[in-house]
Amino acid sequence: MSKDTLPSRSENFAEWYNQLVLKAELADYAPVRGCMVVRPYGWTLWENMQAGLDRRFKETGHVNAAFPMLIPLSFFEKEQEHVEGFSPELAIVTHGGGEKLEEPLAVRPTSETIIGHMYAKWIQSYRDLPVLINQWGSVLRWELRTKLFLRTAEFYWQEGHTAHATAEEALEETYQMLDVYADFAIKDASIPVIKGIKSETEKFAGAQMSASIEAMMGDKRALQSGTSHFFGENFAKAFDIQYLDQNNTLQYCHTTSWGLSTRMIGAVIMVHGDDQGLALPPEIAPFQAVLVPIYRKDTEKTLVMPVVDKIKTELLAAGIRLKLDDRDEVTPGFKFNDWEMRGVPLRIEVGPKDVAKGTVAFARRDIPGRDGKTFISQENLASQVQEMLQAIQSNMLAKATAFRDANIHDVTDYATLQEIVNDGWAYAWWCGDTNCEVQIKAVHSESVALAEYVLYRSPWPRSTAPQCSATH
Amino acid sequence: MSKDTLPSRSENFAEWYNQLVLKAELADYAPVRGCMVVRPYGWTLWENMQAGLDRRFKETGHVNAAFPMLIPLSFFEKEQEHVEGFSPELAIVTHGGGEKLEEPLAVRPTSETIIGHMYAKWIQSYRDLPVLINQWGSVLRWELRTKLFLRTAEFYWQEGHTAHATAEEALEETYQMLDVYADFAIKDASIPVIKGIKSETEKFAGAQMSASIEAMMGDKRALQSGTSHFFGENFAKAFDIQYLDQNNTLQYCHTTSWGLSTRMIGAVIMVHGDDQGLALPPEIAPFQAVLVPIYRKDTEKTLVMPVVDKIKTELLAAGIRLKLDDRDEVTPGFKFNDWEMRGVPLRIEVGPKDVAKGTVAFARRDIPGRDGKTFISQENLASQVQEMLQAIQSNMLAKATAFRDANIHDVTDYATLQEIVNDGWAYAWWCGDTNCEVQIKAVHSESVALAEYVLYRSPWPRSTAPQCSATH
Repeated sequence: MSKDTLPSRSENFAEWYNQLVLKAELADYAPVRGCMVVRPYGWTLWENMQAGLDRRFKETGHVNAAFPMLIPLSFFEKEQEHVEGFSPELAIVTHGGGEKLEEPLAVRPTSETIIGHMYAKWIQSYRDLPVLINQWGSVLRWELRTKLFLRTAEFYWQEGHTAHATAEEALEETYQMLDVYADFAIKDASIPVIKGIKSETEKFAGAQMSASIEAMMGDKRALQSGTSHFFGENFAKAFDIQYLDQNNTLQYCHTTSWGLSTRMIGAVIMVHGDDQGLALPPEIAPFQAVLVPIYRKDTEKTLVMPVVDKIKTELLAAGIRLKLDDRDEVTPGFKFNDWEMRGVPLRIEVGPKDVAKGTVAFARRDIPGRDGKTFISQENLASQVQEMLQAIQSNMLAKATAFRDANIHDVTDYATLQEIVNDGWAYAWWCGDTNCEVQIKAVHSESVALAEYVLYRSPWPRSTAPQCSATH
Repeated sequence: MSKDTLPSRSENFAEWYNQLVLKAELADYAPVRGCMVVRPYGWTLWENMQAGLDRRFKETGHVNAAFPMLIPLSFFEKEQEHVEGFSPELAIVTHGGGEKLEEPLAVRPTSETIIGHMYAKWIQSYRDLPVLINQWGSVLRWELRTKLFLRTAEFYWQEGHTAHATAEEALEETYQMLDVYADFAIKDASIPVIKGIKSETEKFAGAQMSASIEAMMGDKRALQSGTSHFFGENFAKAFDIQYLDQNNTLQYCHTTSWGLSTRMIGAVIMVHGDDQGLALPPEIAPFQAVLVPIYRKDTEKTLVMPVVDKIKTELLAAGIRLKLDDRDEVTPGFKFNDWEMRGVPLRIEVGPKDVAKGTVAFARRDIPGRDGKTFISQENLASQVQEMLQAIQSNMLAKATAFRDANIHDVTDYATLQEIVNDGWAYAWWCGDTNCEVQIKAVHSESVALAEYVLYRSPWPRSTAPQCSATH
């Protein structure tokens, strides 16, 4: 790390973000255009996110598998909307083992096609259904304007692909996985997302319906943070995914897919970060607490370090992800700033006075300054740390929710809509007509994400909408 | 699954292997030449292996990260031996986003080059060392003759890449990771590997020294199951990985890399499998035990199922990876064969007589037939299952070790060597001269892997070798 300060978040949000990602050593630019390197601190954050998601996937009956990263180009042409959506973004392998390939291969931008091909082979009977498979990996989409974590050519994600006997069951899966994403975002990442259904023009290439979770960033913009798609029979027909039902009749499967990516790391940065740097929710933070010994002279060090080592052993044994910062070449003040910048939720300080009193000092990342500082007895320290981490986790969600709700405004006319979306979100009526969507986006292409935002199972009463907020 | 039987392992080992991989649904052929799909049962096996390795990597101070899958072609040319070794195997991306690329990109066959490039950027001072990073992912090598898990174009692995201040420390790391692999193979996979150092002609392209673990398969052939490489300053000089030492002098780093792949799944199949199918060590088995209810009439089912459900709850709560096979459309006998073929270590049967007596029947996969069957009280069942799984794990290692040792022969002359290596391993003296190696391989290219097999820290006393077993 270096001592130079970050740009101010309020003054230059974009530059604050870019520099913070580099300075906190979350990621770096790769020597391949548009690609990133996810550094150990960023990857550990992603591993913790993966654990939270993977547990939820398995609890809902899914299993993991691995499909090839290369896909024959012809596969994309089997589903018309899919090929139109993804062709411009493909990276193409033309040579292998020193020879030109007969058929070029695409590096996967998403895996519906190759997984559909395999499902057609594996699925014979209704007894084989549902097939509930997830894959962790990376995909590649040739992007021109890239930004670390938010939009890179190669990015890391999971993609779930499921096949079902009926449309109802596939729709149920689509909604279930949206719920799983929302549960993860809220509980693990402390991000209060809103679930919604994408407009016709914004849905996934080849989908009948796409749903997403959307989060409000610190600059009041929306970030799509996870998507879940219902394909109906579209891919089943393109790839011949059929099964014999109980009456021995051949039927098409109904399929879904759903994905959440390292973009979620970008969301965590932009929702919780501040001028001091990152603020990471304890549930996913690489280090939940940092332990900083405080001493000036060697005599003080001799007093402090045995207590610090004892505390370290106790907290690690309790399963707390603890970092002991015992560097001698930098001051405690430097360490405080450094770990604040890296977003560690809780700092635990132990100095000579603490040793004398049998206490430690807690400093919360979510409540800066004196208000976040308390002195705690060394007794039962592990359980006190765990309680504090839970309090921090909840408070981060509460803060993010309050910020979001303060920046969503009810809107009933087009003029107000135009004003609001420059600096916040608008709850507005929309008739669902693509013309209105195009018109609004022509003016506000950067700030407007048009979606029929509906909470699952309480659908938008479109027919009863009083008036579209667009001009007609 | 189907009811057709496997080829006999002793009569046609290769075909037995191919069919078993497909039949057990571990993997399938992909629609891309030389690539495989790892199906959920195979991938869960790999996930369990990953967990055992990842824990060991982290215990030895390593962290995970992610580097791009695409590498500029020019990177390969920076290390002369590396480019010669890997050029013939590269898959090349020539187009992206609809346009021809200025510089073609290779799909990574291994990541020394791109990671070396990043290390040069990240490492400045001795304080930044050592850098101990691992990456989980897949790589691509254009292979002509492929075999599921053993040799495919794309395969899954981990690759560790470390940078150190001194050659001694880097060598220590090289050996440490070989030890980690051996510990994993022996304890988790019940495979008694032998650690050794590869010959000059067999070492990794660009390495100063390559070490490997080698395992004896059921057909008495050797399978290289993990490698650890010492690069000295080779890659550091090629990529300018330098640091300022304590005296403010610029020094080159010393680097290592080490990898273990899904080939290890092939080893597990070929070491432990038999004519009935797979036999999986409990530590890594997707299902450690299968619970099979036995009943003929509905009245029996009504008796048996409540006990079965209670046992299921108890064993799952104890963390045992249990599969309840409650299919009604197949017979218990079919289920027995099916799960034996899939290698589940322990079968637990519960029938009406067991309900009356308060017992269950255990059937061990590692001891076929009556000898492996015992009746156990339902009391403290979870701990009895755990003990039995440990016994199975140990016995599988003991069996594999006995088989290996029975098929390693001491050899002192060339004629015997030639005879032995057709059906076993030979312990033979070798002077270390490449000419002798070439000569032996010309006759036995399929069966001879020449390595200076040495146990770490008790090096081969090459100078005291009585006589090379080759002709001179």
